Amino acid sequence: MAHMNPKPSIPEGYTIPQVWKYNEETMKPVHGSNIPKSGPQSDKELPRGSHDIQLYGLGTGNGVKASIMLEELVEMDETFDYDAYTINIMKGDQFTSGFVAVNPNSKIPAIFDQSTGARVFESGAILVYLAEKYGKLMPTDLAKKAECLSWVFFQVGAGPYYGGGGLSHFKGRAPKNWEYAIDRYTIETKRILDVLDKALEGKQYLCGDEYTIADIMHWKWTSGLISQEYLDGASYSNLQRWSKTVAERPAVKRGERVLGWGSDAIPERHSRADTN
Amino acid sequence: MAHMNPKPSIPEGYTIPQVWKYNEETMKPVHGSNIPKSGPQSDKELPRGSHDIQLYGLGTGNGVKASIMLEELVEMDETFDYDAYTINIMKGDQFTSGFVAVNPNSKIPAIFDQSTGARVFESGAILVYLAEKYGKLMPTDLAKKAECLSWVFFQVGAGPYYGGGGLSHFKGRAPKNWEYAIDRYTIETKRILDVLDKALEGKQYLCGDEYTIADIMHWKWTSGLISQEYLDGASYSNLQRWSKTVAERPAVKRGERVLGWGSDAIPERHSRADTN
Ligand SMILES: N[C@@H](CCC(=O)N[C@@H](CS)C(=O)NCC(=O)O)C(=O)O
Ligand SMILES: N[C@@H](CCC(=O)N[C@@H](CS)C(=O)NCC(=O)O)C(=O)O
Repeated sequence: MAHMNPKPSIPEGYTIPQVWKYNEETMKPVHGSNIPKSGPQSDKELPRGSHDIQLYGLGTGNGVKASIMLEELVEMDETFDYDAYTINIMKGDQFTSGFVAVNPNSKIPAIFDQSTGARVFESGAILVYLAEKYGKLMPTDLAKKAECLSWVFFQVGAGPYYGGGGLSHFKGRAPKNWEYAIDRYTIETKRILDVLDKALEGKQYLCGDEYTIADIMHWKWTSGLISQEYLDGASYSNLQRWSKTVAERPAVKRGERVLGWGSDAIPERHSRADTN
Repeated sequence: MAHMNPKPSIPEGYTIPQVWKYNEETMKPVHGSNIPKSGPQSDKELPRGSHDIQLYGLGTGNGVKASIMLEELVEMDETFDYDAYTINIMKGDQFTSGFVAVNPNSKIPAIFDQSTGARVFESGAILVYLAEKYGKLMPTDLAKKAECLSWVFFQVGAGPYYGGGGLSHFKGRAPKNWEYAIDRYTIETKRILDVLDKALEGKQYLCGDEYTIADIMHWKWTSGLISQEYLDGASYSNLQRWSKTVAERPAVKRGERVLGWGSDAIPERHSRADTN
């Protein structure tokens, strides 16, 4: 009986249109984002280095997953090296023809592998691809790999709830602080943190005794969340312990600097010497 | 200068708390969901059949991915069969001790493989697991597999924007029609549809000439979206064509019935005879 008792609207008088239309005045693009279309907005090729793996990214919660993974490979395999280039998503670099060719979804991170001709987009796909190609950080036993992949996918589905798609948007960028939306995403964020905290009970890493790509997927985002007083982050004691253990890894420290933000950031990387 | 010009709040006077607290009165659990904690809420084992693969699911946009995949295996391999049980998420079945043991995140679908002892949760992980175990519907060539996995992960990250996490929540269940949130998720939903529509330009399936798990991941959700006048669904002509092609597959038709909703639904499945 929605008809007899219509839902209130914000602002008052707003009604959901029969056919939605993009309104150029109220829905301004932000750095090329926030428009209902995909595809390139300018014509520009991506740079290419000499190694097989070319990373196009930025040190965000999703971007560092790729740079940490690549630095782990550097750590574990003397012969491995890669090139990395900053994609400045605040300037719309994700909408160049070159970047759209590696990721039609215009999001970082993405990689191109000059040895196989593979483009790989989505952080989860990138980590699985690299783990399989170089035989590291993912179990090969069927059941153990299933557990690892389950936690990898779980992060991708959870990200939009606690990250810029959900909580951090409504608590930050949104034009108004809407209590309902903030509570909704806070509840889900805390539930997700509780799932992870319980998974780490009595275990060193998410999938058991071994550090895997599942830990890399979750580490940066989760560490940011459990540092917040708002979320009572201190109460997630297993996550606190795990977050510190992972943070101490040399590859994680270097991975945070590659395409990162701090004063020691490395905006472009071509050899091991660049992270010294 | 947020301090000098504070953001307006909805409702007026609401301020984001320093430390967020669950309010038992305003944040009522819905069928056991919508609480900031994870874990079992009752003690109950899951049923087990005689086949290796046990599916615990429901015919939602995420659930049908698993039942379609399993019906494709039935179609492609004479010796394959599986058991399937309904998890009624409207009644809180996802919070029993048995279900939490297969998916600590309390979401359908999840599977248990009695031959390997693997539990697998997250639709993406389930499809990759089954594709690898049975050697079907995912390319093995490194570059082609990378393309397929990229599209698989893309669906998992996109779902919360167009599904119950985003657009369909704010346009449906939310207590008020908030124009800002509805526009935000509509823009992103249409952008995602455009990414997929362009990907299908001149190609029969998402990853090329072959039907893969990437198509299964996207099919049900996307087909629902492009049927909406609100989203001008008819304008996504490649998606329209692809959606119809996939819908005609016998395994897709059966997969929709297994644990589905319609009058021909099969709430529990143990053999090929059950879908006749
Ligand atoms: N599910 C994707 C998410 C990637 C993503 O959202 N990347 C953000 C930065 S953290 C981005 O590129 N945003 C640019 C834009 O939206 O225009 C993944 O895991 O790779
Ligand atoms: N990313 C997950 C999403 C699974 C999901 O959200 N499942 C919903 C039904 S479509 C569910 O079980 N909801 C129950 C609840 O939230 O309590 C996947 O792809 O499997």
